[in-house]
Amino acid sequence: MASSVDSVDATPLDHFHAIIPAGGVGSRLWPLSRADHPKFLHDLAGNGHTLLRNTWDRLLPLTGAENIVVATGVAHAPAVKSQLPDLDPGHLVQEPSPKESSAAIGLAAAIIELRDPDAVIGSFAADHVITDDEVFHGAVVEAYQAALADWVVTIGIRPSEPSSAFGYIQLGAEEAIEGAPSAHLVDSFVEKPDYEVARKYVSSGDYLWNAGMFIAKASVLLGRMQAEKPELVAALREMAAAWDTDSRNEVVERIWPQLEKIAIDYAVAEPVARAGGMVVIPGDFGWDDVGDFAALARMHAKGPGDLAILGDNTAVLSERSSGIVVSQSSRLVSIVGLNDVVVVDTDDALLVTTKENAQRVRALVDMLRQQQGDLL
Amino acid sequence: MASSVDSVDATPLDHFHAIIPAGGVGSRLWPLSRADHPKFLHDLAGNGHTLLRNTWDRLLPLTGAENIVVATGVAHAPAVKSQLPDLDPGHLVQEPSPKESSAAIGLAAAIIELRDPDAVIGSFAADHVITDDEVFHGAVVEAYQAALADWVVTIGIRPSEPSSAFGYIQLGAEEAIEGAPSAHLVDSFVEKPDYEVARKYVSSGDYLWNAGMFIAKASVLLGRMQAEKPELVAALREMAAAWDTDSRNEVVERIWPQLEKIAIDYAVAEPVARAGGMVVIPGDFGWDDVGDFAALARMHAKGPGDLAILGDNTAVLSERSSGIVVSQSSRLVSIVGLNDVVVVDTDDALLVTTKENAQRVRALVDMLRQQQGDLL
Repeated sequence: MASSVDSVDATPLDHFHAIIPAGGVGSRLWPLSRADHPKFLHDLAGNGHTLLRNTWDRLLPLTGAENIVVATGVAHAPAVKSQLPDLDPGHLVQEPSPKESSAAIGLAAAIIELRDPDAVIGSFAADHVITDDEVFHGAVVEAYQAALADWVVTIGIRPSEPSSAFGYIQLGAEEAIEGAPSAHLVDSFVEKPDYEVARKYVSSGDYLWNAGMFIAKASVLLGRMQAEKPELVAALREMAAAWDTDSRNEVVERIWPQLEKIAIDYAVAEPVARAGGMVVIPGDFGWDDVGDFAALARMHAKGPGDLAILGDNTAVLSERSSGIVVSQSSRLVSIVGLNDVVVVDTDDALLVTTKENAQRVRALVDMLRQQQGDLL
Repeated sequence: MASSVDSVDATPLDHFHAIIPAGGVGSRLWPLSRADHPKFLHDLAGNGHTLLRNTWDRLLPLTGAENIVVATGVAHAPAVKSQLPDLDPGHLVQEPSPKESSAAIGLAAAIIELRDPDAVIGSFAADHVITDDEVFHGAVVEAYQAALADWVVTIGIRPSEPSSAFGYIQLGAEEAIEGAPSAHLVDSFVEKPDYEVARKYVSSGDYLWNAGMFIAKASVLLGRMQAEKPELVAALREMAAAWDTDSRNEVVERIWPQLEKIAIDYAVAEPVARAGGMVVIPGDFGWDDVGDFAALARMHAKGPGDLAILGDNTAVLSERSSGIVVSQSSRLVSIVGLNDVVVVDTDDALLVTTKENAQRVRALVDMLRQQQGDLL
């Protein structure tokens, strides 16, 4: 068992299982992200691998391949398998329809719990970017130690700037937990604030970004969820019981459509935090959920006046311009005299906007849904 | 012979010949305009016809098809023929290499003079947009009358706004010419001014836009040019003498490469104006040389907040945006939150800029010339 930052890359943590929910199209990244090619299947970190593959590679040292479960929509199962050839087919949870994170993570946790009653699970989104794996590993090790002590744990990211694009975690008192020296109680979860409020949060030092990472014993997580949503957990456990049997498909097809849609934030994290049962490990690594093209520009630009370029074989000619160009076409892209511009060039659709308007892309996609469904 | 505005659409003017110089790529309209598909071959007026064809159609009532000569580069001769099936092959002057307007217009004038010693020629660029043909015709009739009285004549456009994109003509005293009641002496030609100077010009009422239209007897035009550039005119007349003979190609190939490159503004218009020999007819019709995408946006936008769309089969989705989209691809173009934007989408190249930066496109093309010559 590894218990220090230095050894995490060598030895997996005992009974530690990772769950990777691979869902979410990434609407605000249209036309790069599409329903049939969602955000986690793109190389948004610019390192030659998909975000999903990056997530797998980052967790592997902590779990080993046999202790990772991926939950994704049936439509994306082939792409996930192709990205993760070492993923055991029995460890791929295919969601017949979108049911939010409580169903996806809860079912995975229930399956893992049956296979390993002492399991500690950690859920990490498939489509986030993390830039310092070593520091991330250290935070996970602390979270794992806190989970062994029956806490529900999250990892909150130390903010690098006031951002209104993320939710925040308000730090409570320090909590003395063996092996988790930086643990604090979670005082509350806060929805995305406006910029002014975000500025106050960040300067206070009492707030972390909520990266949606949850670590707990599988039994604790499901127990906490059961206290809030008993019918949901009963249904998840019924499917889990059938999972490694011949009746898996029959049971899943019967039960899945009935499941309540609820984010795990509401079914577990917020009520547990209110009850004083949740701790957070501050994470000092680079993190972004790459929610929109402004985030992508921020990640890839070398400075405020830089024009970042993402894409293979992209010929870009620019003059007096900054922002980001994302190209999936072979065309020449030329930009003259635009600051903070976002140009996304694909074979069948082009988006031109600005970093400031990056959040509006979702509204555009809503318009598209009515007019040009084939381009989504 | 027609001598009043009312009859110009019915009857050609006696001995009146039009010369249409069809040259100039329109670099600032890249990537729409290309070396192999220059500006005059595009439907920039948005009426389903090329600018060249519009020019032909506009002049036809004044000349008849047999009295129009088109001068263009050899590379564009096939496209010109295809656009103008009624153009007599002997009326197509193919320039072996670019030699500026004195050579092109002067050779055409010399050819016409030999065929019709009493010819009055009017030279009108192939790539300008004129929106009121009736009023244009009226101005040409006056210019023709003044030309019959041995003046070198231009038509100057009454400015609709202060523009720093055009040169100006400074009006001198009224000149009493029969049939040309609005004729004024040309005091001087003025290069493109800055905006502040343009504002003063326009508010004074004494300045007109220089549209590069020249009307004169062929013999007068060539005589005036000969006074400035005797060798050039001798060379032009030698080619003209061979034009309708078997030795045309041999003579042109020998002489053309030696011709001096000089704009007709410098070889004729400015010296004649300085000598008090030039008059201008003010034209109260809509005119634009569509020099860049800002001009194109101005022409096609329904108002300052409008996003103009030019192109066939163009699906454009926009939110809070203004400016212009020019599309030659079948892709969806979506624009969010950009004002005065210029988006030009072709199959192999994309340009994104703003109206304010439209003039900079030429610099971009210069960069391209070194890097990606095949896209020019």
